[in-house]
Amino acid sequence: MELITSSKNPKLRLLLELQQKSSERRKHGLFVVEGLRELQHCIEAGYEVDTLFVCPSLLDLNDASLPECRTFELSKEVYEKVAYRGTTEGIIAEVKVRENGLEQLASRLKSESPLIVVLESVEKPGNLGAVLRSADAAGVDAVIVCDPLTDLYNPNLIRSSIGAVFTVPVAACTSEECIAFLKANKIQILTAQLQDSELYYNTPMDGPTALVMGTESTGLTNQWREAADAHIRIPMLGRLDSLNVSVSAAILMFEAVRQRGYATKT
Amino acid sequence: MELITSSKNPKLRLLLELQQKSSERRKHGLFVVEGLRELQHCIEAGYEVDTLFVCPSLLDLNDASLPECRTFELSKEVYEKVAYRGTTEGIIAEVKVRENGLEQLASRLKSESPLIVVLESVEKPGNLGAVLRSADAAGVDAVIVCDPLTDLYNPNLIRSSIGAVFTVPVAACTSEECIAFLKANKIQILTAQLQDSELYYNTPMDGPTALVMGTESTGLTNQWREAADAHIRIPMLGRLDSLNVSVSAAILMFEAVRQRGYATKT
Repeated sequence: MELITSSKNPKLRLLLELQQKSSERRKHGLFVVEGLRELQHCIEAGYEVDTLFVCPSLLDLNDASLPECRTFELSKEVYEKVAYRGTTEGIIAEVKVRENGLEQLASRLKSESPLIVVLESVEKPGNLGAVLRSADAAGVDAVIVCDPLTDLYNPNLIRSSIGAVFTVPVAACTSEECIAFLKANKIQILTAQLQDSELYYNTPMDGPTALVMGTESTGLTNQWREAADAHIRIPMLGRLDSLNVSVSAAILMFEAVRQRGYATKT
Repeated sequence: MELITSSKNPKLRLLLELQQKSSERRKHGLFVVEGLRELQHCIEAGYEVDTLFVCPSLLDLNDASLPECRTFELSKEVYEKVAYRGTTEGIIAEVKVRENGLEQLASRLKSESPLIVVLESVEKPGNLGAVLRSADAAGVDAVIVCDPLTDLYNPNLIRSSIGAVFTVPVAACTSEECIAFLKANKIQILTAQLQDSELYYNTPMDGPTALVMGTESTGLTNQWREAADAHIRIPMLGRLDSLNVSVSAAILMFEAVRQRGYATKT
């Protein structure tokens, strides 16, 4: 295992670029995962690790079952300089990206009555990560990101999802493709919007259902509103008329959980 | 209106200290509100503004109805240096703190069947702010913060609440005081915890109800578990067993909204 003791080492340049730029992630087909737990979820989800950087003074290598691949050892000083979080995880991996299209997703959808969350044009990786974290908790079957303004391998997204980006089936596609996919699979489309809408908890969600939400700034586009089987809204009972998108998503997902009566499963 | 063109001006030293240190906020009995909308919510809630700092090139003074008080004008360069958010709001106020005890809260509780959210020992101001934002949307009657590890006037809290810290009645006290208050007012105590609990959506919340949540790291203390009328939990149906505290709080609050049938009000 080669030891790297300078943060200027050229082996680390790619690592930093992959953390910072989606264009570099696309170009090299690699992304970065930091932390043992996140990496384990990532490997369990079938991703292939390309390169590992470990810091033995932060991570007990005997305790951790690491994948077999090219591995570099970092001194503590160097690790702290390249670690995205600046915490003491002690492990960073370069992982190979894979296709996250609807085709790949369809093969993973086993439920007869899938619950899917669709997000249109999310801008903030942290918001998308937070939605994924709640989607894991609610046991949703898939999250589909339409016309995304961030890539699924953004380090902020991975971090705020605490690994849910690997545990929840995720796809990225255009809104048009997504609508066609949902219609073809007879999944009802419920769009969250204020106009012409019914209260979310009066809307049945126990059949195959997609909960569709727009950006915080502009809401959903017309193509989604028109494709919808029903428009639903969360009542705003206060002064500010405002909920964070990840909070709204969680409220809708768990209403579906309630209606589906998951009581016996837990 | 005195013009300040240097960020070294001694009038700004207090402003910066009030933003940064809770000890300074306590010592001077002042806190900082930035942004016109937040300030309007703050004034509507009955707070008294002590000093204003405005930047005329960022804020149209004719459009904004400002309270009468000592006011300083800041050049754009100086404003950007002292502004907490670094955005272009153009207005910062030093506001007088007030007592936020249970006595003050009790006089504001008008509902016959109040819905109260209680948070024990919240550490992160951003999480508390996010809970307040959702509490405003759900129209809860009060948020009580027990044994808080942050003060209610932390700028991160005000920012993440987008002003809900002013629109929602808030009190801070010890857990002991809060339990006595809830018992005396015959408000049922529902504690969110995993052990010995029932699913939250099977628990009636239409009577006077306090939803009690602990810190993300250690959960609720024993005194709350023992004081509870029922223990409730959100089912965890995924791999990560983890929800953000502000997301959990929102799910519970909106279940109460659903059970209370606010449909006709909106």
